Amino acid sequence: MAGKLRIALDAMGGDRGPEEMVAGAVLAVRHEDVAVTLLGDETRVRAAVEASQLPAELAHRLEVVPTTQVVGMSEPPFEAIRRKKDSSIMRAFALHKEGRVDAVVSAGNSGAIMAAGLKYLGRLESISRPGIASAFPTMKDPVVMMDVGANVDCRPRHLFEFGVMAAAFSRVLFNIERPRIGLLSIGEEGGKGNTLVRKSHLLFQQSSLNYIGNVEGQETFQGDVDVIVCDGFVGNVCLKLSEGLAEVVTAMLGEEIKKRLPAKIGYLLARDAFAAFRRRVDYAEYGGAPLLGLQGTGVVCHGRSSAMAIKNAIRVAAEMVRNRVNDHIIALLAADDFLAKKAEAAEGENGPGAVE
Amino acid sequence: MAGKLRIALDAMGGDRGPEEMVAGAVLAVRHEDVAVTLLGDETRVRAAVEASQLPAELAHRLEVVPTTQVVGMSEPPFEAIRRKKDSSIMRAFALHKEGRVDAVVSAGNSGAIMAAGLKYLGRLESISRPGIASAFPTMKDPVVMMDVGANVDCRPRHLFEFGVMAAAFSRVLFNIERPRIGLLSIGEEGGKGNTLVRKSHLLFQQSSLNYIGNVEGQETFQGDVDVIVCDGFVGNVCLKLSEGLAEVVTAMLGEEIKKRLPAKIGYLLARDAFAAFRRRVDYAEYGGAPLLGLQGTGVVCHGRSSAMAIKNAIRVAAEMVRNRVNDHIIALLAADDFLAKKAEAAEGENGPGAVE
Repeated sequence: MAGKLRIALDAMGGDRGPEEMVAGAVLAVRHEDVAVTLLGDETRVRAAVEASQLPAELAHRLEVVPTTQVVGMSEPPFEAIRRKKDSSIMRAFALHKEGRVDAVVSAGNSGAIMAAGLKYLGRLESISRPGIASAFPTMKDPVVMMDVGANVDCRPRHLFEFGVMAAAFSRVLFNIERPRIGLLSIGEEGGKGNTLVRKSHLLFQQSSLNYIGNVEGQETFQGDVDVIVCDGFVGNVCLKLSEGLAEVVTAMLGEEIKKRLPAKIGYLLARDAFAAFRRRVDYAEYGGAPLLGLQGTGVVCHGRSSAMAIKNAIRVAAEMVRNRVNDHIIALLAADDFLAKKAEAAEGENGPGAVE
Repeated sequence: MAGKLRIALDAMGGDRGPEEMVAGAVLAVRHEDVAVTLLGDETRVRAAVEASQLPAELAHRLEVVPTTQVVGMSEPPFEAIRRKKDSSIMRAFALHKEGRVDAVVSAGNSGAIMAAGLKYLGRLESISRPGIASAFPTMKDPVVMMDVGANVDCRPRHLFEFGVMAAAFSRVLFNIERPRIGLLSIGEEGGKGNTLVRKSHLLFQQSSLNYIGNVEGQETFQGDVDVIVCDGFVGNVCLKLSEGLAEVVTAMLGEEIKKRLPAKIGYLLARDAFAAFRRRVDYAEYGGAPLLGLQGTGVVCHGRSSAMAIKNAIRVAAEMVRNRVNDHIIALLAADDFLAKKAEAAEGENGPGAVE
């Protein structure tokens, strides 16, 4: 595709409605070197675009593709993609397959997004399980965790691939030459953990990756590891738990502070300090969660994404395309593929580590 | 056993040394209606007891049993209990088996504590996997999570038993007639989660327990559920992640507040409010993590436990004995045992859900 990168944005995704999504696209064309294709309800999307009063030279970077169906947030993914061919999610990936866009961004039903991506784009060669990664803040640099929800029952080979994909993403997005990879476990020694983790540990250990061993939950936010590998069940639990806990800690601490200060000062201070803190840890700053392992590029955003979060996700999608994250994944996997093959052969059909 | 309940305390457990453990025992005899048997290095333990200057009528409630070996915190549990018969942990459970104490409290190696408990006390009838529960603070009342580390690869029947045991504990400790039980998962609908959770959901659903369905990680700290069930790998990851995250959030928020206030006020305020917050969420207040499913009573404490945490753990152990938590477990299981048996029959040897 000549010229600017073009990102498809699912205007019907997210809890805040198409107007917020369009606002995100508007921010993106203002601040990033991209064009955006908006998919969704034509009337609402066009009205929101016009309301934005973009200057003509920017407005022509926004394209609207009307769609008539919407996938609900709790709809079963495979049923949704079978029944809703004209949904914004499905059409976005269809455009991607046709080469009319370079990537897809959506704040919709993540299961349906993954299913649509698999259907239209397929898996990257030698990846058996595409997944979803998520970057989040630590005391130092952000860490990338994978998988955070796409694959709930995994084998060692899958965890190994998650490590490879997340490392390629970390390298491209955060410019880390050889990201430090840790396996989320419940003890630092390789012999600890559940069966899946113990077997995956052996795979990583023999690989050429920069594997630093098991990491425990409390290390997640220290910033001494760049990539944390886990199955999608554990990863998703961790993600949700962290969101919930951060809210509770903030609320409790806020109460204690307000108790100790004159009401007005307490209020202002809390408002201010807490807003700064929230910016610092805001998932929105990190630009969504990349789908990794597809023959193409996709980014899933939190349902409650703001325009700013959408803009950042569009930037991340563009960087993934520009910096060829998929080529990095293939190259890293090629170096270690013999390991994965060996593991698969050793596991057999119903061997240990199989849960499905 | 006539008279006061007697709790065995492993004086060699914990990172702070026997003096801190003895201080915990001293607090316990001062504030609780118990007697304590201290096991450990005779010279150090006796010196610490004397230094406490307990009045004679309390001092006679402390007994010292000399032991010569110590199990290290990272020693492999089964090796440790085989080789160190005269360790404080092993001797404590031996005394329990002989009926000379009513419960064991230790801040030592939790794997070794569980292994020693299994060896000397054995499992409670109809419990296939004893485990470790943990109570922690939420926005409302404390919640009990089980398992938090003893069983890393589980079957549905094990999760069902964890629910029963944690419910009995919740009832006895927090006086909740029918504790609300949730299954930790990654979606609220019963069809979501990994294979283990989906199968366990069916068991709970058919039981007579007060099962409220799947709960997601962010609900953990809301306080709308009394018992959260998960396998020991997930539970331990959650526990460690929460500890780590609470520290990071507190540190980041502290920085933002200090930036916004004159140095001295900021320092005092932060010190004060944060200390109050820490008391509110302090694991020490919750008195350790009960071993559930043994023919006896044991409580594991955090390695960094203070004297206050040890005192609380002794109180919890005494309450478990007084209120017959094990009888409640047996009664609850008897009501639902047909379910567990059915599940086991359906699973077979290598069926779904088997990971080991």
